Amino acid sequence: MSAVRLLVACPDRPGIVAAISGFFARRGANITSSDQHTTDPSGGRFLLRMEAEADLAGLREAFDGEVATPFGMEWSLSDARHRRRVAVLVSREEHCLLDLLWRWRRRELPCEIVLVASNHELAREDAERFGVPFVHVPVPPGGKPEAERALLAALHDAQVELVVLARYMQVLSGGFLGALRVPAINIHHSFLPAFVGADPYRRALERGVKIIGATAHYVTEELDAGPIIEQDVERVSHRATVEELVAVGADIERRVLGRAVRWHLEDRVLVFGGRTVVF
Amino acid sequence: MSAVRLLVACPDRPGIVAAISGFFARRGANITSSDQHTTDPSGGRFLLRMEAEADLAGLREAFDGEVATPFGMEWSLSDARHRRRVAVLVSREEHCLLDLLWRWRRRELPCEIVLVASNHELAREDAERFGVPFVHVPVPPGGKPEAERALLAALHDAQVELVVLARYMQVLSGGFLGALRVPAINIHHSFLPAFVGADPYRRALERGVKIIGATAHYVTEELDAGPIIEQDVERVSHRATVEELVAVGADIERRVLGRAVRWHLEDRVLVFGGRTVVF
Amino acid sequence: MSAVRLLVACPDRPGIVAAISGFFARRGANITSSDQHTTDPSGGRFLLRMEAEADLAGLREAFDGEVATPFGMEWSLSDARHRRRVAVLVSREEHCLLDLLWRWRRRELPCEIVLVASNHELAREDAERFGVPFVHVPVPPGGKPEAERALLAALHDAQVELVVLARYMQVLSGGFLGALRVPAINIHHSFLPAFVGADPYRRALERGVKIIGATAHYVTEELDAGPIIEQDVERVSHRATVEELVAVGADIERRVLGRAVRWHLEDRVLVFGGRTVVF
Amino acid sequence: MSAVRLLVACPDRPGIVAAISGFFARRGANITSSDQHTTDPSGGRFLLRMEAEADLAGLREAFDGEVATPFGMEWSLSDARHRRRVAVLVSREEHCLLDLLWRWRRRELPCEIVLVASNHELAREDAERFGVPFVHVPVPPGGKPEAERALLAALHDAQVELVVLARYMQVLSGGFLGALRVPAINIHHSFLPAFVGADPYRRALERGVKIIGATAHYVTEELDAGPIIEQDVERVSHRATVEELVAVGADIERRVLGRAVRWHLEDRVLVFGGRTVVF
Repeated sequence: MSAVRLLVACPDRPGIVAAISGFFARRGANITSSDQHTTDPSGGRFLLRMEAEADLAGLREAFDGEVATPFGMEWSLSDARHRRRVAVLVSREEHCLLDLLWRWRRRELPCEIVLVASNHELAREDAERFGVPFVHVPVPPGGKPEAERALLAALHDAQVELVVLARYMQVLSGGFLGALRVPAINIHHSFLPAFVGADPYRRALERGVKIIGATAHYVTEELDAGPIIEQDVERVSHRATVEELVAVGADIERRVLGRAVRWHLEDRVLVFGGRTVVF
Repeated sequence: MSAVRLLVACPDRPGIVAAISGFFARRGANITSSDQHTTDPSGGRFLLRMEAEADLAGLREAFDGEVATPFGMEWSLSDARHRRRVAVLVSREEHCLLDLLWRWRRRELPCEIVLVASNHELAREDAERFGVPFVHVPVPPGGKPEAERALLAALHDAQVELVVLARYMQVLSGGFLGALRVPAINIHHSFLPAFVGADPYRRALERGVKIIGATAHYVTEELDAGPIIEQDVERVSHRATVEELVAVGADIERRVLGRAVRWHLEDRVLVFGGRTVVF
Repeated sequence: MSAVRLLVACPDRPGIVAAISGFFARRGANITSSDQHTTDPSGGRFLLRMEAEADLAGLREAFDGEVATPFGMEWSLSDARHRRRVAVLVSREEHCLLDLLWRWRRRELPCEIVLVASNHELAREDAERFGVPFVHVPVPPGGKPEAERALLAALHDAQVELVVLARYMQVLSGGFLGALRVPAINIHHSFLPAFVGADPYRRALERGVKIIGATAHYVTEELDAGPIIEQDVERVSHRATVEELVAVGADIERRVLGRAVRWHLEDRVLVFGGRTVVF
Repeated sequence: MSAVRLLVACPDRPGIVAAISGFFARRGANITSSDQHTTDPSGGRFLLRMEAEADLAGLREAFDGEVATPFGMEWSLSDARHRRRVAVLVSREEHCLLDLLWRWRRRELPCEIVLVASNHELAREDAERFGVPFVHVPVPPGGKPEAERALLAALHDAQVELVVLARYMQVLSGGFLGALRVPAINIHHSFLPAFVGADPYRRALERGVKIIGATAHYVTEELDAGPIIEQDVERVSHRATVEELVAVGADIERRVLGRAVRWHLEDRVLVFGGRTVVF
């Protein structure tokens, strides 16, 4: 018996939960957690996350034939003990990287951080202290295509299953994202959709907002428009300078990114229609 | 077909969800929402809330025989359209009462407010403006037993299914609560368990706390110790006087109580072991 | 002796606080509260709010000659006991109006609410129950100029010193605002600058944000771009429908607007460079 | 000219601000920031924090004679560039220590961290990586008096001006605190005064609270009763295990402690009557 996680998305109709839970019950598997959401009461999409104690041998084939195919499901069934291989990309600001490394060491993140890559050398020492290989992929003017090829090679060599952009300030091309073939999570230093684009803290100050925030989202080709996984905010006063907003923001960024990465690794995040359900 | 709500509590073991969802599937009922929680992975209690579109005729009897009895369930199956009859008890402070009346008029609370009772006359006008009968039950020194009898009679005459203590400052006796036979929700003006008892805002000021809060809980004989349904907080500064803490607190109290009452009316709150699960 | 409030804005330079506090000290006036802010350490603007117990007779003339003129100040000196005359404008949604009326009755708002105006009849009964005159100013298609004239006349007749747009859904023209000659505060049902414009809750749902908010700001001709006075937010989940976001939002709106109006009435809000300092 | 910080506490009466600001104005010093608070409108205590650009030579003597003595002030006048020497005490949990070291490296904390001391060896590597001397002071059964003497000697040798208890789980004796002669700040892993004492997260779970928090306070002989500097909270659900509460709590603890230490180092915290004013 192992802990397994089932994710399902399919058109809503009666009998789905009965089919799934019956499937597990026939195998003596205990469902330890279950969440579901229907996007629309009529004609909506049914989304489910289930954890169970089950024997994985032959389970996927049986589920496909008995349940998934009849209901037209998109689905995945994974071993909860599997620790995904994660790469972290970073530029100059190290707070999100360090926080992920700390949380990983503390066993808050069920993954293996197998690579840190950066367009600067700054993060090398921090990464290597945690025993994580570091690769420097500079992006000189005009050298972006070549840099993206080198980065992609490093990520594929490391067999990463998730890429985390922990204040990586280079825009990744659609071609890169297409070739990456694994999810990428970015932390944006504003409460999206407010202050899309560059220099959000300065613009927050100039607009005089009373609360600032950060947003973790899946990366899509359209900048800052990917499905939002998590957001958080803090109150600021007129006293705060841009530098102080940046410091407050750094605290929000790292905790928002830490949550988003953990939830992703626990298979809690389902994407549909450009947004997410977080179970 | 009606919207029905099923609440279940029973010892955890494999097959519960399959049995419940199979029961609904055999009747062509669509499960529109489902939440479950197991209090402990081994030997714990299984708690579930489910909403389904189903035909209520004969449903309870069938569920009892086919599912509830074999699994040793405590359970209820209710018509989601049923609007429970609610009484609000209040003393001098009217903010929570008014908020409940407003939310009820706005159709945020799926209930009928059928009675407002108070140990003062102050709230009569507010209650009657909303078309709700008001009863004045004074509690003179030494007159508490008689007052409780009168209050109980009024509540029973009004056939109430929920009592809300919206800043009702009289302690209710164990005898009263036993005879009441329906749940009572109280709003306590502090972040419990901090500042149990009287005058919490003054004590919060004296202790110099930086955040104050309020707590909605089911009423039990032990004062301020009932299962917590909802809490919320706000930040305060050293500038605040006791009067200003009271004003900030009033805002927290009314929104905490509003949520707790709504969740109870939507059958989202399950009690076990002196605490609650809110689905 | 009366409680007086001094607001000052002037170019920053040494000696300002000494001049002001010396002025009060020479008159035996006790400064009970003082806040100051300099927008930029070099060449910035100095902003100050001070409360003192002082004799108002001749105070303004003396302050002008002894302090304000030498330092080139914009300033005001007001009697803290003066209760400003306030009009509330509302359309269909009554939650902000009711909250303001109730806070006024509770003496949380140091003002007189002297008029409620609306493009609908719906709020008449609520307004009149609180003893406030109600005026219906319909805005038929093509009738906006005439409606604005009628509204302006009503506001001027009532000698209002502040206009609060409590979910008033008509865009006011620049001409109207220019002729109004008193400040107007609006509550916008989003966390500005996110979701500027119409239907913010639906757009928040579609974008999949995890937190929604509301913003109180001074009204300027450019829609939703006026100086922000206060903002607040609440966390929402994927379960929430648009209707539920609207209900959560209503709670945020009323408390944000209540704070903004109170702070304005207490002379806590200074505007500079398109944003505010809230002392 | 240097940036100087003035802290003042004295009986409230007219003329204090005029005397202080006049003193600075006569020396051509510009007041860049000023906050004041009166604990009670009548007969209260006047508290003030002021930042100014001034020439420190002879300033303290002059202030004492011209201002402090006539008004009976407790006061301090410090050079804002002075970086205080700080020791961090830690037991097994390293998250608060790491956060302080990292904020120090990032220049968010205006101090020198000159010592890390622990009753365990665990934190040695982390401390030394940041270039901070580490001292292991074990506390064997019955060996507390000796351990406190060794710890005190290490702190005095390092000439520390502030001690931070960053999850240091040994209770310090009154004798130790008396001999320490510099302030100590502790982080308590609950929202005080809720869950005073040991194992607060387990007790929070058992009580079923919906929000957990942390509290940074000055250490006094009475455990968990010292003046509160900062508190913060986060919402938790019934799903959370004790381990998950501990992880959420760790995030709250480190940010609360980080703020409290920074505010102390910036001379923003004044203590009176068992509580604090944070300017």
